[in-house]
Amino acid sequence: MNIKLLSGSVALALTIGVGAVPSGASEKPNVVLMLADNVGYGDIGAYGGGAMRGMPTPVLDQLAAEGLQLTQFLVEPGCTPSRAALMTGRYSVRSGLGTIILGGLPNTLQEEEFTLGEMFKSVGYSTAIVGKWHLGFEEQSWPTRQGFDEYRVGVIETSESTLYRPNMERARIDEATILEAVPHIYESDGQGNLTPVREYTLEYRRQIESDIADAAVNYIARQAAAETPFFLYIGWTHTHYPSLTAPEFTGKSTHRYGDAMMELDHRTGQVLQAIEDAGIEDNTIVLWMSDNGASPDAAPWPDKGGSNGPFRGELGDPTEGSIRTVGMIRWPEKIKPGKTNEMVAIHDILPTLASIVGADLPDDRPYDGVDQSAFLLGQQDMSKREHLLTHVNNKVAALRWRHFRIYPKAYRGSFSNPSQEGLLGVQVEKNGGPDIFNIEMDPREEYSISGDNAWVVAQWLRFVAEYNESLREHPNPPGVTLTDPDFGK
Amino acid sequence: MNIKLLSGSVALALTIGVGAVPSGASEKPNVVLMLADNVGYGDIGAYGGGAMRGMPTPVLDQLAAEGLQLTQFLVEPGCTPSRAALMTGRYSVRSGLGTIILGGLPNTLQEEEFTLGEMFKSVGYSTAIVGKWHLGFEEQSWPTRQGFDEYRVGVIETSESTLYRPNMERARIDEATILEAVPHIYESDGQGNLTPVREYTLEYRRQIESDIADAAVNYIARQAAAETPFFLYIGWTHTHYPSLTAPEFTGKSTHRYGDAMMELDHRTGQVLQAIEDAGIEDNTIVLWMSDNGASPDAAPWPDKGGSNGPFRGELGDPTEGSIRTVGMIRWPEKIKPGKTNEMVAIHDILPTLASIVGADLPDDRPYDGVDQSAFLLGQQDMSKREHLLTHVNNKVAALRWRHFRIYPKAYRGSFSNPSQEGLLGVQVEKNGGPDIFNIEMDPREEYSISGDNAWVVAQWLRFVAEYNESLREHPNPPGVTLTDPDFGK
Repeated sequence: MNIKLLSGSVALALTIGVGAVPSGASEKPNVVLMLADNVGYGDIGAYGGGAMRGMPTPVLDQLAAEGLQLTQFLVEPGCTPSRAALMTGRYSVRSGLGTIILGGLPNTLQEEEFTLGEMFKSVGYSTAIVGKWHLGFEEQSWPTRQGFDEYRVGVIETSESTLYRPNMERARIDEATILEAVPHIYESDGQGNLTPVREYTLEYRRQIESDIADAAVNYIARQAAAETPFFLYIGWTHTHYPSLTAPEFTGKSTHRYGDAMMELDHRTGQVLQAIEDAGIEDNTIVLWMSDNGASPDAAPWPDKGGSNGPFRGELGDPTEGSIRTVGMIRWPEKIKPGKTNEMVAIHDILPTLASIVGADLPDDRPYDGVDQSAFLLGQQDMSKREHLLTHVNNKVAALRWRHFRIYPKAYRGSFSNPSQEGLLGVQVEKNGGPDIFNIEMDPREEYSISGDNAWVVAQWLRFVAEYNESLREHPNPPGVTLTDPDFGK
Repeated sequence: MNIKLLSGSVALALTIGVGAVPSGASEKPNVVLMLADNVGYGDIGAYGGGAMRGMPTPVLDQLAAEGLQLTQFLVEPGCTPSRAALMTGRYSVRSGLGTIILGGLPNTLQEEEFTLGEMFKSVGYSTAIVGKWHLGFEEQSWPTRQGFDEYRVGVIETSESTLYRPNMERARIDEATILEAVPHIYESDGQGNLTPVREYTLEYRRQIESDIADAAVNYIARQAAAETPFFLYIGWTHTHYPSLTAPEFTGKSTHRYGDAMMELDHRTGQVLQAIEDAGIEDNTIVLWMSDNGASPDAAPWPDKGGSNGPFRGELGDPTEGSIRTVGMIRWPEKIKPGKTNEMVAIHDILPTLASIVGADLPDDRPYDGVDQSAFLLGQQDMSKREHLLTHVNNKVAALRWRHFRIYPKAYRGSFSNPSQEGLLGVQVEKNGGPDIFNIEMDPREEYSISGDNAWVVAQWLRFVAEYNESLREHPNPPGVTLTDPDFGK
């Protein structure tokens, strides 16, 4: 390998400039972004799952064939962090959202963050979100205070909290406390105020994906007739546990996760059909991606079933199986259908779409995402990204650089007591040397090659230093974790 | 699930009757069967590897697209066992070949076995084998004594023995002993006698795949002009360790196994091109498969790189990653291109091809393979197979039945001392209950579901009893293993 190659770098973009397309509203594409919940790299047919796993995904396979299928789409290792990265184009720790918001954790998206919704609003789009948000409970964090005109079938948190009521009742907790803890479904009004319209119960869980699809279809039909282009963000929920599906999908596969995957495929088809029915297919960019790897170990038993394909680990780990998942983008006539292994991260979505629709991003903050529009539109062969840092507990836990992975600590299952991994696993200090894996040779990260590849450590130090340098002017806000013994100090 | 479904059974076929095609020579298709060495489920692009692993496989991906790609192609857990199953259509233990022939193990294919070569000879084919055989050293086992007219670039054993000379020299073993142990390349003469033409050295290892391709191309060109149809069996070698490739492929990927995979893809292309050049593409059945899963743990470090995709374990284990690998079959106009998850085993190749070319099989022995021609030719939707037993140390070690796996013992890595798995792992007795996995839900076999699926045990007992019943009339020959403490008793 030519050592000169190593001097190439993905610069930390402090400003991202004028977009590639004139801002006349009529030329702007609609954008429909669908984010699946905990779908792993190995779950969809186009990625080697689907029928082979007893859960055919014909709609998603066709979408992959019609669009550009990314086989190296990188994310952050959990729902909140990845969604924060998607909304802000920055590492989630920069907005204090490096931890999954669970059980009353106070982390919440701050008013001053500039989101995907606000970016689209800045260039005249109508915007809406349907389904899961998971970026904090405070009003400043509501999607309707972060650039979205409306919020339908609003899941402001995570779907596993639907398990709280039965578990709290069994624990003999009083109803008032239960009511504070259980999730609700929200709808926005004309002023962007959110109102709970029903409790998000286990029973309603079976119906929610259908309601999300209906609301999305309704929005598309409505907006297709409007003057302004639209941005629709759909947060699917069923492949997160508990995977309770609509009756017509229950039992369709040999496992509950498979049922959820098949329903998700069908619901995606409803949205794509609405785009086609509205006659706006050619002028609509469709993005379909997952927020993080599957979580077979964190999920309770009947919901196990997500697979991260050949990769190691799961949601919560800084490993490949946690942060590499499905990602595809379709834009007829603009993005050439195919399959690419070039590296693209969820952080890149904001700067890339901003470039495509001609929006500017604020120049007062560091961006980790890069503008991939030239790559996606075929103007250059290579992606603009060669590395990504991953954080755990708000600290740098891994570097992906080219086909290498570098870890300062070792990440393990919880030594069988209980036998759980991923978010429930442990990290242990190493005896001095970082682990280095060649992810192309060893997708399961079984053989550290640091003994004869210690030269990679210099890359690790370089990217960590670049990141830490950026923190001097722009320190991260405090990031609370669920295991913080200093909480409330 | 309808409980009545459970009464369906794949009967042990004691006789396999008249084939589907009249035996007029002019109507018989040529058959080219390529067997790759230790290629795992996750290595080829069409199976989710390829470019994503830094080793594009465009030729094999195209072959998969032109043919029927089997995503549930099952084999035996090692080179010798799988090759015995391929040649005989029976579990390898029935021919005493349940163990990989290594280090002078005396197991050898018996004269009375009826092989794929003999089947094709019985209906007038010309037959040849090029490359790896690995079914024993004795003359009765030679391919030329088992139905093959000729043997080119003959690797009678396994390619890892190319490592013997340097390791024996370093151990100060005398040259005479070394010469007895090191492998040679054999060629047959007109009487089927085998002559060593060169030592199979590490240096020659870089050249062998090229020589195999050349010999195959030469045979195809020669036979295409002949009156008789031909059967060509090609045993590729490079993806087995040590993966030493031709200079033009060395360094093409980020790892040595990747280089070997890319060379294998290219060599396969040479054979396919020869078929096309000879103008016999439409009348030639091409089968391309691997003998077993990859062996990342048994291989020495620089050759690690095979991946069994989402599945657990490796060569030598009775787990899914060991016995599920790539398999594809192309027959233009006869076999519809596509992808199927129906279960097909390497044992089925003999009875299936016999049926297609109108050959009879002996009726004096039990067959485990089933005739899949009706399924492959689209005359029925379902494969004729629903289960497969896997043996380790010549004993039943696992049952695959539908989407379940059942294990009477637990198979583990060697508890880190040394840290090796697969063939070098261990088996431990369980506390009474078998492990049961749903392979569609849990491809890595992490969650035994025996607690709420103990009904599956009845299926385990049924198939084991059927197999044991067959042994009463046809007992297996003694099967020696490398770890047999009674050897020589």
